[in-house]
Amino acid sequence: MSHPLLSVFEARSVAVVGASRDPAKFGNWVVKALMDSGYQGAIYPMNPSASEVWGIPAYPEVRQVPGPVDLACIALPAQAVLDAVSECVAAGVPHVIVFASGFGEAGQAGRALEARLVEAVAGTGTRLIGPNSLGLVRPQSNLVACFGREIVQRRHPPGPVAFLTQSGAFGQALLCWAEDNGIGFSAFISSGNEADVDAADFLEALAEDGATRVICMYLEGVRRGRAFMAAASRAAASKPVLALKVGRTGAGRRGAASHTGALVGDDLVYEAVFRQTGVIRVRDAEEMFDLARALARQPLPRGPRVAIITSSGGVGVAAADACEELGLEVGALSDATQAALRERLPGFAAVQNPVDLTSQVHGSPEWFRDCLRTLVASDGVDGIVVGITAFRSPDIARNILDGAAGFSGPILASWTIGQAARQAMDILESGGIPVYVTPERAVRALAGMYKYVLARQKAVRAARADGSLCRAEAPCGLL
Amino acid sequence: MSHPLLSVFEARSVAVVGASRDPAKFGNWVVKALMDSGYQGAIYPMNPSASEVWGIPAYPEVRQVPGPVDLACIALPAQAVLDAVSECVAAGVPHVIVFASGFGEAGQAGRALEARLVEAVAGTGTRLIGPNSLGLVRPQSNLVACFGREIVQRRHPPGPVAFLTQSGAFGQALLCWAEDNGIGFSAFISSGNEADVDAADFLEALAEDGATRVICMYLEGVRRGRAFMAAASRAAASKPVLALKVGRTGAGRRGAASHTGALVGDDLVYEAVFRQTGVIRVRDAEEMFDLARALARQPLPRGPRVAIITSSGGVGVAAADACEELGLEVGALSDATQAALRERLPGFAAVQNPVDLTSQVHGSPEWFRDCLRTLVASDGVDGIVVGITAFRSPDIARNILDGAAGFSGPILASWTIGQAARQAMDILESGGIPVYVTPERAVRALAGMYKYVLARQKAVRAARADGSLCRAEAPCGLL
Repeated sequence: MSHPLLSVFEARSVAVVGASRDPAKFGNWVVKALMDSGYQGAIYPMNPSASEVWGIPAYPEVRQVPGPVDLACIALPAQAVLDAVSECVAAGVPHVIVFASGFGEAGQAGRALEARLVEAVAGTGTRLIGPNSLGLVRPQSNLVACFGREIVQRRHPPGPVAFLTQSGAFGQALLCWAEDNGIGFSAFISSGNEADVDAADFLEALAEDGATRVICMYLEGVRRGRAFMAAASRAAASKPVLALKVGRTGAGRRGAASHTGALVGDDLVYEAVFRQTGVIRVRDAEEMFDLARALARQPLPRGPRVAIITSSGGVGVAAADACEELGLEVGALSDATQAALRERLPGFAAVQNPVDLTSQVHGSPEWFRDCLRTLVASDGVDGIVVGITAFRSPDIARNILDGAAGFSGPILASWTIGQAARQAMDILESGGIPVYVTPERAVRALAGMYKYVLARQKAVRAARADGSLCRAEAPCGLL
Repeated sequence: MSHPLLSVFEARSVAVVGASRDPAKFGNWVVKALMDSGYQGAIYPMNPSASEVWGIPAYPEVRQVPGPVDLACIALPAQAVLDAVSECVAAGVPHVIVFASGFGEAGQAGRALEARLVEAVAGTGTRLIGPNSLGLVRPQSNLVACFGREIVQRRHPPGPVAFLTQSGAFGQALLCWAEDNGIGFSAFISSGNEADVDAADFLEALAEDGATRVICMYLEGVRRGRAFMAAASRAAASKPVLALKVGRTGAGRRGAASHTGALVGDDLVYEAVFRQTGVIRVRDAEEMFDLARALARQPLPRGPRVAIITSSGGVGVAAADACEELGLEVGALSDATQAALRERLPGFAAVQNPVDLTSQVHGSPEWFRDCLRTLVASDGVDGIVVGITAFRSPDIARNILDGAAGFSGPILASWTIGQAARQAMDILESGGIPVYVTPERAVRALAGMYKYVLARQKAVRAARADGSLCRAEAPCGLL
């Protein structure tokens, strides 16, 4: 049986409480977003005075809806939320999302209001997401239960990355930016103030979500430390979990306190928690999505040994530096491999490691293929970084894909030249090889993959000690 | 009197030795590149058997050219280079660029050949750039003396950043990529093996180049340590000098040895040299050009005090973390400033620092203007970071430019949302405010600016001790 929270992604009906006919109100565009996203379930606008919203029949109260409500979106201002939530509880709605701000993050009165929300759902069959949540998106179900103006105006191609964020606006910005950069999502969840359902709950659920292969989190603070650790260990034992935990410094913590009212706590504690549970900590969003992209598309490395192939010696040096600084190894290739490369490549190519094909490879792209085939066949290479500096070269991209076929480890590429190589980069990406703009970013992603390989061992031990590994093991089979 | 090397940028005539009528040979497209770039000087193709190349009269020998030759590009294979260089020396050509590889980087025979090249120019009026150089580009003179296929095929808008690179192919890739990202260059120089003219010489010259306001260097190794230090101190005393020095690790050094034959040396020595001379060391190309962009377009901060303004609390937290980790301060704004902000902004805005206008500012972009005006007028702010997460918002960009007017310190922006904000970002950029995709990258650039402010004090002291500050002081007046 899968995690109960996952059922929210499969909601067969969504009620929008506060559905408005006034396009200036978010209760209006939340309904529109559900309609426009291609959602196939029933949509029930709740409006005390209108008979329809956007042409869909409206109802004054949730209990009058002609069918079960799997999810209710409360699109009302803070003061009206408690009554609406109580109504949903009474009607047996299993999941409620509260969009409004003005609760725990807004002084004493707000905190009191939030406490009453928690009381209203405690011990009932209703779980509450938010308040101060932007909502959630489940691309593969075409479910956009969200009031983010940016999110509701675009299509969300499904993919393997789940993104859980405690900041709505920043999370929305990051989602759109990541999608523009070719990342597809299995879920976007803005957890808001986490008055009821919190990050630990979502993490537990996402660990069991078959559509999610990588979990990304933007965290400001964690409410239930023990529950979070248990969930993190279980999740990290079965799939990579990346955390961008802000509030690392005093200045950041002061900012977080005024933002979501989170008690942020000492960063050293978080550092220890991540290390112990096997969560990979990243420093910024670029590092997070660079790594997520690699994890989603390439197999994990079995070890730290990297082969670097470039069309520029300089790229090779930069990549080698980054490898060594980030815990990867760039040892000389074996004599047999070097001999095999010598046989297939021209005399001026450097074949130790980094392998430098020089910019003459731009005229002979099959050298990339021949070189990769040799490395793929050798047993001393756990991962490969290909650093390219060519201009318009779809042929290079095709030869790289050809040569990389059948490799059991990860292959990542950097392509530093800008727009002129756009088409060629797209060919590589379509073939499953993630492309980064600099060799350092490609290497950092590979180093993150290897870090996860090491971290997973820890996560497996922690999850076993917790007695909960079996459940986590099932859906992914990565172990 | 300006540095003699600078005269290469103003060459009134360029001879191409090895100018070929065969489009497969680089001696062919080097001539074409000079023609297509809009270069106004005389072009002299040298060809022993053809009377014209690309319709321009050709000559068999340099001494037969009907006028002085300011620059000779030697587009011949390694074995033919020595004779050509000797001919240029005999003809009194002041600057020669050697493109061919197969010298110091190519084993014992190559090293011997390179030594003979050095002998040929030693004590003469001819200086040699290369061998193994991609050439140079001076956009404001429309001078493209280069055989890089990517570089010769595009326009190069002039700008204030000089880029000196010891790797030709990687340097070319970085140049094109940086130009795609809106950076304009005053000079691109590929110094190759530096058999004669080396990084220290170019640094000395660029320090005196009126068109250059920021110097970026990709270095693998430095030949003349003392000369480099003296040049670096002088340069850094008058304008920012950024160094991406690779070969930091053992793996990187091995790669560099096989690349340009550079003796890379212990990284700790370089670290000390950069610190002592005031050169700002960066970790990768992205950091280098992020910082160069900020330095080229915004004034230096007088101190470390940063005000952060955002439309998302999460962005504020991320920016504050980055500030504190990178040596900047995010203190609470003064009581007077907070009171002034309270007066102008709605009650739900956080006015301490970070200032969080919340995503409601997307509907009221004038809050950005009002907030910035207040901060610009306060005396407790040395630099400002604006973190934006809005969608399509040219109005936000205009209000930010409006509010930022008259600020004596730097203002940098992050705009995290992707392509949907392209137009708005362009408006900000056109107004002189550099835009980054994440708050962390904006903060890192600001921190680099402040690092330079501190480093310059060191550079001034070092240059004074060296007795050479007067010359360096003149062109920039930054002191």
